[in-house]
Amino acid sequence: MKEFEQHLLLIPGPTPVPPPVARALSKPMIGHRALEFGELYAAVESALKQAFKTQSDMVILSCSGTGGMEAAISNTLSPGDSVLAISVGVFGDRFAKIAKVYGMDVDVLAFEWGRAADLAAVAEKLRTSGKQYKAVTVTHNETSTAVTNETKAIAALVREHGALLIVDCISGMLCTDFETDAWGCDVVVAGSQKAFMLPPGLAFVSVSERAKEAMVQSKCPKFYFDLAAMLESGTKRQTAYTPAVGLFFGLETAMELILKEGVDAVIARHKRLAEGVRAGVKATGLKFFMDEAHASNALTAILPPDGVDADKLRSLLSRKHSIVLSGGQGKLKGQIFRISHMGAVSERELLGALCALEMGLREMGYACDVGAAAHAAANVWMA
Amino acid sequence: MKEFEQHLLLIPGPTPVPPPVARALSKPMIGHRALEFGELYAAVESALKQAFKTQSDMVILSCSGTGGMEAAISNTLSPGDSVLAISVGVFGDRFAKIAKVYGMDVDVLAFEWGRAADLAAVAEKLRTSGKQYKAVTVTHNETSTAVTNETKAIAALVREHGALLIVDCISGMLCTDFETDAWGCDVVVAGSQKAFMLPPGLAFVSVSERAKEAMVQSKCPKFYFDLAAMLESGTKRQTAYTPAVGLFFGLETAMELILKEGVDAVIARHKRLAEGVRAGVKATGLKFFMDEAHASNALTAILPPDGVDADKLRSLLSRKHSIVLSGGQGKLKGQIFRISHMGAVSERELLGALCALEMGLREMGYACDVGAAAHAAANVWMA
Repeated sequence: MKEFEQHLLLIPGPTPVPPPVARALSKPMIGHRALEFGELYAAVESALKQAFKTQSDMVILSCSGTGGMEAAISNTLSPGDSVLAISVGVFGDRFAKIAKVYGMDVDVLAFEWGRAADLAAVAEKLRTSGKQYKAVTVTHNETSTAVTNETKAIAALVREHGALLIVDCISGMLCTDFETDAWGCDVVVAGSQKAFMLPPGLAFVSVSERAKEAMVQSKCPKFYFDLAAMLESGTKRQTAYTPAVGLFFGLETAMELILKEGVDAVIARHKRLAEGVRAGVKATGLKFFMDEAHASNALTAILPPDGVDADKLRSLLSRKHSIVLSGGQGKLKGQIFRISHMGAVSERELLGALCALEMGLREMGYACDVGAAAHAAANVWMA
Repeated sequence: MKEFEQHLLLIPGPTPVPPPVARALSKPMIGHRALEFGELYAAVESALKQAFKTQSDMVILSCSGTGGMEAAISNTLSPGDSVLAISVGVFGDRFAKIAKVYGMDVDVLAFEWGRAADLAAVAEKLRTSGKQYKAVTVTHNETSTAVTNETKAIAALVREHGALLIVDCISGMLCTDFETDAWGCDVVVAGSQKAFMLPPGLAFVSVSERAKEAMVQSKCPKFYFDLAAMLESGTKRQTAYTPAVGLFFGLETAMELILKEGVDAVIARHKRLAEGVRAGVKATGLKFFMDEAHASNALTAILPPDGVDADKLRSLLSRKHSIVLSGGQGKLKGQIFRISHMGAVSERELLGALCALEMGLREMGYACDVGAAAHAAANVWMA
């Protein structure tokens, strides 16, 4: 990357931090047991409930998303409990790994990477496993494959089965429709470094009444991630242990921006950007990795053309155009590249990125017309 | 506090963040799997080793200090293991609580609050308990009572006993002499929001070779705090899960400032500030809560004079002079107040605070001469 150029971060977290949020991060520290912090806590808690569309209590953990996922498991379940982990990629597998670490009896219902969970298969598994699952885990938006699951329908099946529904909505929240209460989700996890436009370091966890009942039974050890301790401190508008105060300042500002725009408007913006980017990518002749019917609003996963190495392409785009894209994760390493359009990213930036992508592809020997992708994206955005 | 006044945060964490560090927190995000992050990681890891005086591997967890304490326990021990928790206050008790949560057999060797651990009593406990402790936990600097333990001597006893030594050095690191390797400490935990002059959100953990051997045997569940996973990622200059990238930027700048001053010079500065503040407090006629022979360099715990309510005094100082002090924790609530002199705090700020303290005391009916404390402190600092 050229030293003087502002780099364009199009990876699925951390996402770019807008200037007012960046400034808030630098505000002078305050004590986390002071009244001032209580006011800050109350403001961000109330704003997060609007983002989650929930009346349930929220916990704000000072850790990244994986810590929130671990808290969801270790607080509601016990060793030996049966868990069904629905997995469509790296992060679906992560829930299964965490539950195994805590000694649960985990069935993994895995689907081909790039596809969403098949509802009929989920229904059949719940009906025929011969088990009463204590919890089902699902990834609303699978970052590794750029797929969004039909969590609303899965939730209905899980409710019928009588299990808790634990949802990783880390890269999904604010990018795509999500209704914690209306869908009946019990524990939902989101993270600061995604559409919330903050640096990493905070995980947001909603806890339903059913989840609270399960917490009383849970026998897993936990201390820093003890949700009951956090909920109790929350009644005093505090956290059980020292919170990442600077990120709370940033969160307050980010949530002001988000609520001013409107939660549904933020989601619609992500949907619109995603549609434009997909139209642009199609115009270059490249193929998507993910099934387009379940394409994510948060990011797009792309197969490089024959003869083009995905990681070399990313490296060229970084060096020549100061664009940072993601490669594949896990078994997709080297197989795909991913463009995030999550958080504080503009049409203009994405237009520039699509043009630069075409330049990069052409430099690597793939015949494409620079401008075609931008033309197609603009047609979506101007419709 | 008056709106236009800069408040003076004299609590033992978060401590004030100096302007260059605050600016670094707002730097544009980078990907945590990018080469750039690897360079950042290597720089801060190397700097932290200098602060810890260790050649051991370091882990940087994105959480506050308590998460680091939990990681120290859950990674080196197993349910049923015998642990001796030496406690001189709230944070010594916290280690015992965490170990109990994980099912260890915990003996608490508690000392009167305000006093340091008695070495003869520690030696006797190790000799006469009839147990081979797997680990001993100790708080190097107990924030709740403003006492520094004789960790070097305790370490020698623990080495002789053949147990692991797990040290909470969260508020001690950079404030007071501490030598991880020379003293033979196995797991040492520090935190960003103390003398490191950063907001909360990072915990630093050093892991000795003995601790690594113990990690292999450990049967406690852990995922986000899995030190083996973090050490493995560390060899690639990455973290296992998304790190608090903004705080890493701040840490880089803070460590540049600290290493430029010199680790021993930073410690000497804290010692000097503490001596001045104690001389000032004495000049007002107030008594210390902590045994002066083991007074902390990081903060000072003070008994309010008869007839003065500690919390009302703090409230008055906050309202009239924009100074934030801490009260008592746990059973000391309402009994004491604490002045921190940790991190980015200057002689001038402490002189102002001592004068304001005298004004506050006088307003609350305690006869004292405004200026006497500053006079005494200045005599120390000008000697």
